Amino acid sequence: MTNTTRIRWIDPVGHDDFSGDIEALLTDVKRPNTEVETVSLERGPHHVEYHYYESLVLPDVLHLVKEAENDGVDATVIGCFYDLGLEEAREVSESMPVMGPAQATTHLASTMGDTFSVIVGRRKWIPQMRSTIERYGLGDRLASFRPVELGVLDFQTEPDRTRDRLTEAARAAIEEDHAEVVILGCTAEYGFHETLQAELGVPVLDAVVAPFKFAELQAELASLGWTHSKVGGYESPRVAEIEEWGLSDAFRTRGVWER
Amino acid sequence: MTNTTRIRWIDPVGHDDFSGDIEALLTDVKRPNTEVETVSLERGPHHVEYHYYESLVLPDVLHLVKEAENDGVDATVIGCFYDLGLEEAREVSESMPVMGPAQATTHLASTMGDTFSVIVGRRKWIPQMRSTIERYGLGDRLASFRPVELGVLDFQTEPDRTRDRLTEAARAAIEEDHAEVVILGCTAEYGFHETLQAELGVPVLDAVVAPFKFAELQAELASLGWTHSKVGGYESPRVAEIEEWGLSDAFRTRGVWER
Amino acid sequence: MTNTTRIRWIDPVGHDDFSGDIEALLTDVKRPNTEVETVSLERGPHHVEYHYYESLVLPDVLHLVKEAENDGVDATVIGCFYDLGLEEAREVSESMPVMGPAQATTHLASTMGDTFSVIVGRRKWIPQMRSTIERYGLGDRLASFRPVELGVLDFQTEPDRTRDRLTEAARAAIEEDHAEVVILGCTAEYGFHETLQAELGVPVLDAVVAPFKFAELQAELASLGWTHSKVGGYESPRVAEIEEWGLSDAFRTRGVWER
Amino acid sequence: MTNTTRIRWIDPVGHDDFSGDIEALLTDVKRPNTEVETVSLERGPHHVEYHYYESLVLPDVLHLVKEAENDGVDATVIGCFYDLGLEEAREVSESMPVMGPAQATTHLASTMGDTFSVIVGRRKWIPQMRSTIERYGLGDRLASFRPVELGVLDFQTEPDRTRDRLTEAARAAIEEDHAEVVILGCTAEYGFHETLQAELGVPVLDAVVAPFKFAELQAELASLGWTHSKVGGYESPRVAEIEEWGLSDAFRTRGVWER
Amino acid sequence: MTNTTRIRWIDPVGHDDFSGDIEALLTDVKRPNTEVETVSLERGPHHVEYHYYESLVLPDVLHLVKEAENDGVDATVIGCFYDLGLEEAREVSESMPVMGPAQATTHLASTMGDTFSVIVGRRKWIPQMRSTIERYGLGDRLASFRPVELGVLDFQTEPDRTRDRLTEAARAAIEEDHAEVVILGCTAEYGFHETLQAELGVPVLDAVVAPFKFAELQAELASLGWTHSKVGGYESPRVAEIEEWGLSDAFRTRGVWER
Amino acid sequence: MTNTTRIRWIDPVGHDDFSGDIEALLTDVKRPNTEVETVSLERGPHHVEYHYYESLVLPDVLHLVKEAENDGVDATVIGCFYDLGLEEAREVSESMPVMGPAQATTHLASTMGDTFSVIVGRRKWIPQMRSTIERYGLGDRLASFRPVELGVLDFQTEPDRTRDRLTEAARAAIEEDHAEVVILGCTAEYGFHETLQAELGVPVLDAVVAPFKFAELQAELASLGWTHSKVGGYESPRVAEIEEWGLSDAFRTRGVWER
Repeated sequence: MTNTTRIRWIDPVGHDDFSGDIEALLTDVKRPNTEVETVSLERGPHHVEYHYYESLVLPDVLHLVKEAENDGVDATVIGCFYDLGLEEAREVSESMPVMGPAQATTHLASTMGDTFSVIVGRRKWIPQMRSTIERYGLGDRLASFRPVELGVLDFQTEPDRTRDRLTEAARAAIEEDHAEVVILGCTAEYGFHETLQAELGVPVLDAVVAPFKFAELQAELASLGWTHSKVGGYESPRVAEIEEWGLSDAFRTRGVWER
Repeated sequence: MTNTTRIRWIDPVGHDDFSGDIEALLTDVKRPNTEVETVSLERGPHHVEYHYYESLVLPDVLHLVKEAENDGVDATVIGCFYDLGLEEAREVSESMPVMGPAQATTHLASTMGDTFSVIVGRRKWIPQMRSTIERYGLGDRLASFRPVELGVLDFQTEPDRTRDRLTEAARAAIEEDHAEVVILGCTAEYGFHETLQAELGVPVLDAVVAPFKFAELQAELASLGWTHSKVGGYESPRVAEIEEWGLSDAFRTRGVWER
Repeated sequence: MTNTTRIRWIDPVGHDDFSGDIEALLTDVKRPNTEVETVSLERGPHHVEYHYYESLVLPDVLHLVKEAENDGVDATVIGCFYDLGLEEAREVSESMPVMGPAQATTHLASTMGDTFSVIVGRRKWIPQMRSTIERYGLGDRLASFRPVELGVLDFQTEPDRTRDRLTEAARAAIEEDHAEVVILGCTAEYGFHETLQAELGVPVLDAVVAPFKFAELQAELASLGWTHSKVGGYESPRVAEIEEWGLSDAFRTRGVWER
Repeated sequence: MTNTTRIRWIDPVGHDDFSGDIEALLTDVKRPNTEVETVSLERGPHHVEYHYYESLVLPDVLHLVKEAENDGVDATVIGCFYDLGLEEAREVSESMPVMGPAQATTHLASTMGDTFSVIVGRRKWIPQMRSTIERYGLGDRLASFRPVELGVLDFQTEPDRTRDRLTEAARAAIEEDHAEVVILGCTAEYGFHETLQAELGVPVLDAVVAPFKFAELQAELASLGWTHSKVGGYESPRVAEIEEWGLSDAFRTRGVWER
Repeated sequence: MTNTTRIRWIDPVGHDDFSGDIEALLTDVKRPNTEVETVSLERGPHHVEYHYYESLVLPDVLHLVKEAENDGVDATVIGCFYDLGLEEAREVSESMPVMGPAQATTHLASTMGDTFSVIVGRRKWIPQMRSTIERYGLGDRLASFRPVELGVLDFQTEPDRTRDRLTEAARAAIEEDHAEVVILGCTAEYGFHETLQAELGVPVLDAVVAPFKFAELQAELASLGWTHSKVGGYESPRVAEIEEWGLSDAFRTRGVWER
Repeated sequence: MTNTTRIRWIDPVGHDDFSGDIEALLTDVKRPNTEVETVSLERGPHHVEYHYYESLVLPDVLHLVKEAENDGVDATVIGCFYDLGLEEAREVSESMPVMGPAQATTHLASTMGDTFSVIVGRRKWIPQMRSTIERYGLGDRLASFRPVELGVLDFQTEPDRTRDRLTEAARAAIEEDHAEVVILGCTAEYGFHETLQAELGVPVLDAVVAPFKFAELQAELASLGWTHSKVGGYESPRVAEIEEWGLSDAFRTRGVWER
């Protein structure tokens, strides 16, 4: 293992408005020898609430993931609570671990309480997120989704409103749905977990910090050979095919498949 | 309802080698007043066994779906057993129904027997397909996956070998796994179901014909207002946002969002 | 395939009060070359809300199913949302497809939204219906049952009351239970889905039209050999045994087993 | 509670060939103050392997159940491992408990080991039985079904063959499927459990004795008011309706609804 | 079988305040030839609401179970609704059956209605109880837990308050959660089920009486060889090891392992 | 956060034969500022394959956990793949995180592949382990258990035999059961994962290293307030009660509850 661990945060949107905040947040909680890197996309929607937007950014995200591996990055986080591209990234990455906010927070929440609730922005988000959490096997531990009627781009514009709505939704989750742990179900809900935690007296997991810390662990484990398996679903595509079909010319691959 | 029903088959690969066969196959089984249309992609991999390939073609597929709706097509099939882009297409399409081979075959098989087996090409395919079938709720009806160690592009090159392997795998599924129905788990496995059926004495569902026939039904039902719901997960993205962020310029959208 | 497709609707009650309405309804939505036939029982209860009533009519229903097959009918619907006799009918029928309202509506709803709610008459109905939907694998997609406190025979007597109660229950299902699709869980709830749909903005599936349209598809598929499998649970009883035990004399079999 | 407890065994077939054996078997294991009664049907098939046969006998079985309650019987067993009519009987019976072999054996097996296997006659039986066990919630405890390729009427004709096949199947269930408990999945498999148990060293539950002993317990519990609930799915049909529709004349009801 | 059946009730707490009441209650409902015995612990907490308290008493409880078997007792109940030590006791006991209140009541409730609710003291209890009921496979039949905000030691101190709260919670379970059967989820909730039953019109299962009656059945079944299996999870520890490691000296084993 | 992170490994057996090996193993993989501590019990069995042995050691283990928290330890691992006492420890510990080998390895494996197999010593272990993994929600990801017919104390006595059997079982799991990740299901299987990994080409998770590394992460997260929740199932027992009932005198509590 090198002395420094490089963790790259990929913000899967076509702007970097949140990058500074996220970098500051992660720098606060990183281990001493971790280097935080953040990237966002050169093109794309400003949020990915819709599957269409997810689909548009997905190829660019995967090329950033492969680029990160080529650059020697130790682990990567794709910063969207839909866990956009997480399975696909593990196919593309040969051995560099990849993490997503939903997988990290729900797997950690499972070690902290019997059930958890996820505070989301809008009802629209729930079906895909529930499907993902059920795929992870943690559907029985999901006490509820609680929407606060805010879009991704609304969370940071009026922080007081956001804090009040998150607090109210989380309190209802704890008292009415019997949640023991609260998860903030959007990376744009950053900056509120400490206040909520103090107010509510239960762990409130932040969707930026949690996957980043999990990725630091993954980077360490990868040096023991413990990263995603290549014998089944994550088998990588064949570079020979990619070349034969001219995919690097046809798509914006950033040269990631060049040998 | 117009007198003619137009069903468009989207082959989500960057070649049209199978298009003629598929068009002939569908013309054979279509209703009298159905018009069969097939399209494939202008760029892209020659098969989509890997999630990376799925990801590359996904935006182009969604734009073809939206284009089909704009063109007045009555229903569309995305021709890949991963059900690539099916959920996303229902978000993009305002009201034109969309179908995929896995959803069509498994939902029909459920009306034909207690359990079904899916004959796939390679082990690599199984995790994503099982995850999809479990999401559909039909995991308990899945007797087994049986791989025949052939890639997508191998099925039509040596038909005798394909037929023998499919027969052997299907027989094992029926006798050892107690499957009552057999599903051919790749659109490229077309052309074999009748022979297998005669040999094995159970329904053998073809991944080209079944979703097409289901789409004909969906086209009819849509005229009653029965198509995918827009109040939750399939809420469409907002065209105003798409314009504001310049997505039509940044991606190959074929002008589908122009008003 | 013959030029005409005959679909027979079996109303499993001892009166034909609804037959005219149902025949008119189906004639409106049928394909051009479909012939609609309706039959009801010569004896029996006026509704089948109770399992006892279902049990009384079950043998007569199965004999009507077998008679339909003997008559050359292409597909049959048993018109009760309990899916009364559906499994048994597939055993009795050699190859003629059979459909029921619950299987048809729930399988179609699954292609239209993340979750659905079923609007039922009384709480009494729920356990059997939930058990059936869970057996179909679609329990996770069931947002809720919503009873409107009306019996089967009440739905058509005061249409305004029925429409108001269905609307109120469906609205609660959409808003409180997050249902994306609404299913009218009784064949006697016919005649309301268009009004509800206009009012609520989501697909509202009618328990008469939906299984009938599904049966039209099944009739077509059967000509490809795609009907219920005979290698397992649907293996037919042996006519030799039926004769040996004198069952045709002991029960009202309508001569269906005669060779 | 009366001094004597009357348990009636209903053999749901149109002959009484097994009644003597069953009565002897039950007399051996009954409590001192229990009276064993056995009845079979006046008409009907000789076995109920097929759903059609189940359907034919179902109304007569339910009338026998109601007659038993009218006669003051304390609990009734319907003697078929499909648990034919069990749910329906609890609707028809006001307060007399009813039991079936599958429910009794699987619920008892759950208190005796982590998993159980069911030894059945033919593959045909499995789908309905698995569906029933899954409805009971015990699907995860079901290690396997093991068919021995014998019909219901074969079990008692050549006892040596039966014993050998049951032993072989049960041994495979224990060693290969890791079953900890064995259930004989047909009432006609009586007379073998002691031999198997001695041979195999695990509990082997008999489908005649187990539901009978469970029914003795139910009879006692009913005197505490603990019998099937009437507020939901088991709500009884209304006698006024039965009379109004002339069901007693139209069907062979044995006068059970007369007041 | 001996003429007398001895059932021993183990109250897993360090006092015998409830023993007299429980013995009286059981004497009322026992079969004529049953002998009721009650024991409690020589040391330990006064209730076992906390897992820590369960853990402290667990070894002493297991030694009492083994002592009961050594004494020739026919079946034992461990009297705590957490089913504290039930799995462990079946490992320690060679062939004497053991029962717990949660297993007995939920398995009996499953034969009495579609769903049941459990009335508990405090929210704290729910996670472990739900986990237990899900392990039994009956999670889908669990309509709800309803806490009444009383601790174990509060139930018998002000009976009127207890009765009122239990009634209110049970009524809400029946009407709002659609429970068909009510279970009193603590052995200290004894003495109320008859009143509730009269008031509510559904079976209300008592956590003292139900497991005791089930144990009487188990004692009978054990004489047929039907007790917990020893080929898997309940394989007993080896006495030679216990001696070699000096466990009888190191722990308060009451000499139960002496040969 | 203090500069040094103290992780204490509790070996829940009455000897310290493995402690040196484990300490060396953990020292190799720890982060620079982690201090490894190992403790074992003063009394108790030499392995905990039986639930009885688990029960005997459980109170002493919980007192060691509380003592660790009192000592200022940052996180604790209870070193048994049954995850013995894990839930109970989180109740006893106010805020110090606790981890177990099964939870750590299965949660990490879920991020590395579609399915995993667990290589165990004996069939006896499987029921409890499967129950635990199902409680964690990961039952659908469990490809198989594969027993190697070795007891806990056999693994380190003949390393060549152990390595051969583990390799053979793991290979069968990968090829026949389609496992993508292998978990060594006993802490005494340490020292083999690197060899297996090199041989088999999939991640092979070691039950000593994995929970330790997870505990290091938990220690960090706890400083953000992210540790087990106290509002539900993990609510701590009340010290006033413990004192009132004299539990510190009656049990070997090591003074952990003194204030």
